[in-house]
Amino acid sequence: MARWRLDIAYDGTEFHGWARQPGQRTVQEVCEVALAVAVGSAEPIGLYCAGRTDAGVHARGQVAHADIDVVVDPEDLLRRMAGLLPDDVAVRGCTQVTSEFDARFSAMYRRYSYVIVDDLAVIDPVRRHTVVWHPRRLDIDLMNGAAEALVGEHDFAAFCKARPHGTTVRTLHRCVWSRARSGAAVLDIRADAFCHSMVRAVVGALVPVGDGRRPPEWVRQVLVGRSKDARVIVMPAAGLTLEEVGYPPPQEWAARQVVTRVVRHQPLGGRT
Amino acid sequence: MARWRLDIAYDGTEFHGWARQPGQRTVQEVCEVALAVAVGSAEPIGLYCAGRTDAGVHARGQVAHADIDVVVDPEDLLRRMAGLLPDDVAVRGCTQVTSEFDARFSAMYRRYSYVIVDDLAVIDPVRRHTVVWHPRRLDIDLMNGAAEALVGEHDFAAFCKARPHGTTVRTLHRCVWSRARSGAAVLDIRADAFCHSMVRAVVGALVPVGDGRRPPEWVRQVLVGRSKDARVIVMPAAGLTLEEVGYPPPQEWAARQVVTRVVRHQPLGGRT
Repeated sequence: MARWRLDIAYDGTEFHGWARQPGQRTVQEVCEVALAVAVGSAEPIGLYCAGRTDAGVHARGQVAHADIDVVVDPEDLLRRMAGLLPDDVAVRGCTQVTSEFDARFSAMYRRYSYVIVDDLAVIDPVRRHTVVWHPRRLDIDLMNGAAEALVGEHDFAAFCKARPHGTTVRTLHRCVWSRARSGAAVLDIRADAFCHSMVRAVVGALVPVGDGRRPPEWVRQVLVGRSKDARVIVMPAAGLTLEEVGYPPPQEWAARQVVTRVVRHQPLGGRT
Repeated sequence: MARWRLDIAYDGTEFHGWARQPGQRTVQEVCEVALAVAVGSAEPIGLYCAGRTDAGVHARGQVAHADIDVVVDPEDLLRRMAGLLPDDVAVRGCTQVTSEFDARFSAMYRRYSYVIVDDLAVIDPVRRHTVVWHPRRLDIDLMNGAAEALVGEHDFAAFCKARPHGTTVRTLHRCVWSRARSGAAVLDIRADAFCHSMVRAVVGALVPVGDGRRPPEWVRQVLVGRSKDARVIVMPAAGLTLEEVGYPPPQEWAARQVVTRVVRHQPLGGRT
């Protein structure tokens, strides 16, 4: 039995989120099925991820671990997964780790991006699944000023779906908007962990500041209210991507590091 | 009766190209149907475009013209089209023009982009419909050196699908590769006009130079061969986008310029 870390990227559009749900197409189920076939296991192999993304949310840097009881060549596993997975999900890396590594509990932080296009002259159907259009111009500086109130350790209950148990205290490391070269407003947000729908609620609190409908102080007022605030819109999933999960340095858990990546689908091109 | 210019963007993935074909979903048909409904016309309204893109090819800057025999308020037309069109196509602008304006024949140039990701460590399922993955690293300088042989007026028959009539002489204004911030290799290519599948064949001739399988002189040799060269691969449609169609200055043909754009779908957000 050995533990493996899988680095996974997906287009969340056609998935009902990461977590298995009866009758729904989920990233977890699709990957677990492919993994069992890839290693020739008669039993399903459980995958445990760092960030359980919602329906429509994308990932470039999802991390999951699995315990596999057959000997696996990592390059071979990557190649098989590439052949077995549908084209909206890819395993980008595969590393044998020690049993101390846990994709969820070893993680030190999660980093997400959220992309909003606020210039309606550049509406681009190609990007409709990965950005959100906003009909008013956003002032990046105003949003960044308001975001400062959120950085640090706080009870984020105002931005979290209510749950019967579990803390809503989180430490936000970073919450900064910038303009991409395309002109889009991009949020780079990082915390030790996020509650359910927290990033989308934070964006929903900052956007009305950015377009002038709320004063910057409003965000702090919402935060200190410490209960789910109906005035805060949970923004659409399409703009959200899990970019990275941070762990302690690999020497602490990597039994064997693999850097090879395998090309998949569209293996073209320009061959003569 | 007045002539209108429509600026159109689409995700070509689910379209069988621009041009109407029986039994196929095409951009032309979808837009013509929406336009007739939008202006309340019992008769179909023909749309004539600048660049008849193939199946899977995208557009951010497609231009088409239509003759409409009812009085139209352009902002109203944009809003109606936004409500009628599916979410993979958008009318970005709408301008009344004089009858001298012809989307195809008034055009001075067409500009396309082609995007290749040659770093397999960054495979990103979100981008699978808009980029092409290449399993070998591409040398941008080598490709740009080889591309110089193509710039200017030439008979591009070697890069064109054979047709019984019609010239294959074209003037290539620009053919330059660069690295996007994402690391992707992006071709910016502009000509007075392109033959069918010419951009994808030009890319197919430059890529084997970029990855070292052909010497740069090979591209010139293919060009002067002046007949369809089976060694040149026509690259996949997904990487190709019609970025812009160039016309003489608007004062020569614009009866009434409209700058307003209308937001469509995902009208969110952060509303309180």
